Amino acid sequence: MKVGIVGASGYTGAELLRLLVRHPEVELQVLTAERHAGRSVEEVFPSFRGLRLPDLEPLDIDRVASKADLFFTALPHGTSMNVVKGLIERGKRVIDLSADFRLRDVALYERWYTAHSCPELLSDAVYGLPELHRSRIRGARLVANPGCYPTGVLLALLPLAEKGLLGDQVVVDAKSGVSGAGRSPSQGTHFCEVAEAIRAYNVGRHRHTPEMEQELKGLCGREVTVLFTPHLVPMNRGILSTVYAFLKRPIAEEELYDLYSERFKEEPFVRICPLGDFPSTSAVRGTNFCDIGLMVKGTTAVVISAIDNLTKGASGQAVQVMNIMAGFPETVGLEGLALFP
Amino acid sequence: MKVGIVGASGYTGAELLRLLVRHPEVELQVLTAERHAGRSVEEVFPSFRGLRLPDLEPLDIDRVASKADLFFTALPHGTSMNVVKGLIERGKRVIDLSADFRLRDVALYERWYTAHSCPELLSDAVYGLPELHRSRIRGARLVANPGCYPTGVLLALLPLAEKGLLGDQVVVDAKSGVSGAGRSPSQGTHFCEVAEAIRAYNVGRHRHTPEMEQELKGLCGREVTVLFTPHLVPMNRGILSTVYAFLKRPIAEEELYDLYSERFKEEPFVRICPLGDFPSTSAVRGTNFCDIGLMVKGTTAVVISAIDNLTKGASGQAVQVMNIMAGFPETVGLEGLALFP
Amino acid sequence: MKVGIVGASGYTGAELLRLLVRHPEVELQVLTAERHAGRSVEEVFPSFRGLRLPDLEPLDIDRVASKADLFFTALPHGTSMNVVKGLIERGKRVIDLSADFRLRDVALYERWYTAHSCPELLSDAVYGLPELHRSRIRGARLVANPGCYPTGVLLALLPLAEKGLLGDQVVVDAKSGVSGAGRSPSQGTHFCEVAEAIRAYNVGRHRHTPEMEQELKGLCGREVTVLFTPHLVPMNRGILSTVYAFLKRPIAEEELYDLYSERFKEEPFVRICPLGDFPSTSAVRGTNFCDIGLMVKGTTAVVISAIDNLTKGASGQAVQVMNIMAGFPETVGLEGLALFP
Amino acid sequence: MKVGIVGASGYTGAELLRLLVRHPEVELQVLTAERHAGRSVEEVFPSFRGLRLPDLEPLDIDRVASKADLFFTALPHGTSMNVVKGLIERGKRVIDLSADFRLRDVALYERWYTAHSCPELLSDAVYGLPELHRSRIRGARLVANPGCYPTGVLLALLPLAEKGLLGDQVVVDAKSGVSGAGRSPSQGTHFCEVAEAIRAYNVGRHRHTPEMEQELKGLCGREVTVLFTPHLVPMNRGILSTVYAFLKRPIAEEELYDLYSERFKEEPFVRICPLGDFPSTSAVRGTNFCDIGLMVKGTTAVVISAIDNLTKGASGQAVQVMNIMAGFPETVGLEGLALFP
Repeated sequence: MKVGIVGASGYTGAELLRLLVRHPEVELQVLTAERHAGRSVEEVFPSFRGLRLPDLEPLDIDRVASKADLFFTALPHGTSMNVVKGLIERGKRVIDLSADFRLRDVALYERWYTAHSCPELLSDAVYGLPELHRSRIRGARLVANPGCYPTGVLLALLPLAEKGLLGDQVVVDAKSGVSGAGRSPSQGTHFCEVAEAIRAYNVGRHRHTPEMEQELKGLCGREVTVLFTPHLVPMNRGILSTVYAFLKRPIAEEELYDLYSERFKEEPFVRICPLGDFPSTSAVRGTNFCDIGLMVKGTTAVVISAIDNLTKGASGQAVQVMNIMAGFPETVGLEGLALFP
Repeated sequence: MKVGIVGASGYTGAELLRLLVRHPEVELQVLTAERHAGRSVEEVFPSFRGLRLPDLEPLDIDRVASKADLFFTALPHGTSMNVVKGLIERGKRVIDLSADFRLRDVALYERWYTAHSCPELLSDAVYGLPELHRSRIRGARLVANPGCYPTGVLLALLPLAEKGLLGDQVVVDAKSGVSGAGRSPSQGTHFCEVAEAIRAYNVGRHRHTPEMEQELKGLCGREVTVLFTPHLVPMNRGILSTVYAFLKRPIAEEELYDLYSERFKEEPFVRICPLGDFPSTSAVRGTNFCDIGLMVKGTTAVVISAIDNLTKGASGQAVQVMNIMAGFPETVGLEGLALFP
Repeated sequence: MKVGIVGASGYTGAELLRLLVRHPEVELQVLTAERHAGRSVEEVFPSFRGLRLPDLEPLDIDRVASKADLFFTALPHGTSMNVVKGLIERGKRVIDLSADFRLRDVALYERWYTAHSCPELLSDAVYGLPELHRSRIRGARLVANPGCYPTGVLLALLPLAEKGLLGDQVVVDAKSGVSGAGRSPSQGTHFCEVAEAIRAYNVGRHRHTPEMEQELKGLCGREVTVLFTPHLVPMNRGILSTVYAFLKRPIAEEELYDLYSERFKEEPFVRICPLGDFPSTSAVRGTNFCDIGLMVKGTTAVVISAIDNLTKGASGQAVQVMNIMAGFPETVGLEGLALFP
Repeated sequence: MKVGIVGASGYTGAELLRLLVRHPEVELQVLTAERHAGRSVEEVFPSFRGLRLPDLEPLDIDRVASKADLFFTALPHGTSMNVVKGLIERGKRVIDLSADFRLRDVALYERWYTAHSCPELLSDAVYGLPELHRSRIRGARLVANPGCYPTGVLLALLPLAEKGLLGDQVVVDAKSGVSGAGRSPSQGTHFCEVAEAIRAYNVGRHRHTPEMEQELKGLCGREVTVLFTPHLVPMNRGILSTVYAFLKRPIAEEELYDLYSERFKEEPFVRICPLGDFPSTSAVRGTNFCDIGLMVKGTTAVVISAIDNLTKGASGQAVQVMNIMAGFPETVGLEGLALFP
């Protein structure tokens, strides 16, 4: 299958490249990057030194669309929507890694982000969490790849939500590596501001909140409020989400464990830790796995999930989505094991 | 004043040394360390190269007690209690940095730790959080220096607890640097197991839980359950405590801010961040400060505190306690500013 | 091909597992680990959670030897030699990752390490640097996998040595991540001793020195002295070797670049950086690549090489050696791209 | 003494603040910062929260000059020279932390940096390495504070150079933390580009080279070539310089040790490690110390020095210089011990 990446010079672009270059069913036909147009990939990412890859080119939608059948768009929100529209209009299938098509309610999107130029596409877009929407992904022409935080949080909450056990509020305390902030330099991502430190940011008002609430509402059939506190951790990759779920009834840890094991037993990328064990981001580094650990105290369940924000939280999940859309085995190209240490 | 450190070769010992060597009112007379007995301090901590300090000696209680008036005991729990008893019996004042005298209920101590050999001292011991027990510290002969996590969490909750605003459960999600685990090598503190990773540990069963609950009960006049999840962060120093307090009534952020500002306005080491700002451990690195940030959503207050676990969370607080006990100005020897970056 | 790993619970063992589990020509039949015997691999390395792998077993040489045809021995020096001997006697092929068979001169080995129990095997052992000894590796029954530092340094010096350009002394200033020290806890690998710091160690007397000198002598036909200063860097993986070669005659940078490009043009794992570019360990993280950058000032060439100490510096190179020994394509199982960031 | 800081919002500015706020002989009267003019210091550096400090103001030379007697200029090279000139013309004493007055040869300066607008001041400027030029610093009106790399390298070479033992070339392999690159965001200082990696940069052409060569020439009475390779290490602070000095005659390690001990015995900030010990940047973190370790192999001396690049390598040295200029005890305000861990 011929594929293209629009926006190949950021970290999610690089992660797509890492996975797709070795994907046996895929030919990378076109790579775009505005600032770096005309340069080779290895100039921008020396880790790809020596590979034969198309050079980075500017985004000419007609030219680009003609080269491939499926596109990954890895652009900032607001910018992405117009490109996606152009590709869809030219009959291409698109996996969009921005936030532009994740919220089905255009008013909600516009409150949290910016004006939407093509709300008519929102109803077509499938929220690309395979563990929740696999069958709809299969036939989709446009998939909104989930945000990094929502991926880890929703997987942590799925079984409880589906069983009707969730109360009205969930507290999500998440800790992310720095690559989630993208490759553009900023004071907040300067090494010396991050190393040897931890801090919370966007407390109670991070843009991934409505995305979590939308999907929880879909699962629970009513509003569930997410109180979300993201933190920045001095590491490159990984998100650990510590989720405090206040349940409608007490549940034994063993029952919780069985519930999660059963729910995810066919899922190739979700692993439940034995009771007493809790996940570390180091065990999923560079992989598409989501590891989940469980604890109960009274009617509060503590569910902890670990993902790699660039893999299961972004590009790996996008490749998983592509595999589903194309009818490939779902794990192909995603078999690499964690780089530990 | 002549002081001694029993257990000077760990990280809290080193931090005591760092602060006391430059303390204008103090003479360091005796330093003990079992494994390193007979060695100079600079062999064990090259950062003290060139200073004139007593060599490390084994713990001979009579010999040691004769050399100073006030002692810091920085030994593992279970070991500390017997040394403390010996020093108290010899008429010395003691600031104990272990957990051995923090819990007033001996049965509670023995459930979480080990058998207690001198429970008769528990009623004398003052829990050494100056912001809460300053007046009792002044005349104490034995002060139990608070644990690192409880220090950050209790300072975050004091105003709410004192005002009767706390509900029955508090969720504490805390993130600590590695020095909190001590200097003894272990797989869990091996660089490669910690770097580029974050994980939770002792979920719901960390030994600092009863300590927090004891003090909250004292403040609230009833049981408050603490659901405590500590995490290990790849950094040397610092604890960020993200505390979710479910309040009995809604409160505006401005009211909360005023409450905290008022409560701590005379406290030299507590700083309240302007609304919208949140603390980072990097701004308190190496200092005795506790920085606190505030947010409210409905009836849930999110209170985030940052301390240096070795300073305000251990040795700095112990020096603050010593200053109070000895009648020195409370900030003397603790004026150093944060090492940023 | 049926293979076994003796000593599977260290970092080089884990890296062998990571590569061999996904190697299409290999079946992992037996894994040994003394301390962890009886445990599953995923208990020791949660990154392998969910994989079907043999449990770790104690080393019973007859039992172990019966299960596979080729063995990787990843044991400490001194311990390894006896196991290797036992496996060779049972007709197995062995790739030994310890230092026990790297030095051909038993007296030299015994001066730097310990008594050798089977010097008769030394003449059979091939020094397993494929770029230098590929043809001899092909038929070997025992390959001594090179040390991590010598791998990066020898690749940096090969072209100069082969062309007779090297003078009598080479200065090697190398910087290694912490995983090179192994997984056993020690004060030197404690997170807090390593993070936010850099230091040299074993200055002028690191055990990898004679290994470099042996191979350089083989290439140059005379003694070349290596002044070797290793440093410990706060990162998990990677070795950057900055090599100062004092040449017999001046050489232009372009000529040096051509010399290196020509020498390595058929090598699948050596990449020469364009002039003006220098390698970073981040571009080879988790891969078997060695990236080399070049600079000349007068008659001094500065050659900088970057490898991942656990991959090209240990287990990846061992898999490359296995591929050569078994007649597989040399890059099979080693195609993964660098995990960046 | 009334002092001012021109350029207070960078890392060297923050380090000056950290030291001067607690300096007993100094009153901070004026702080400038262009981009942050009008903001409080604590907005820019939350570590100074709660301190009473002048707000940051734009640089109006008349207004600024009127407020203090001595100024620290911490501006980029090229910008600094004009400000320094203005301050000198108004009769102020200046310690300039830029490179603008370090090279006495204006042609050399202009080759490495940019056009010089006030070369007439160069002959007045004293190169501010106290261990070398203390007596001239005392009466100087303009001191050029040494670069971070030259500080560590020159202290490592002083005794050898003064004794006439140095040959014609010195190899300097230096490793720096990231704060040396300043606080302005750039791709090269992005956390994810630096963490878990080491790389060389500006190989053989770093601007600190002529500064080292100038001072070595002064000491040796002839040209000494410095082959300088700086590296970027994933840590905030610290420079480790591994210096390979090719000597004119063999020297025993004990003789070398005695030479260094004797040379620096009166120096308050230089510490010589016992033979066999080597310095770590962690032992000088946040201090003005330079620790030096020594090894000899044949006629090559390996001298390793460790400094904190922001303290002895910049702002701490500037305070030391100020103390000398003002006749204060040289160590006042610089007594803080290393923050370890």
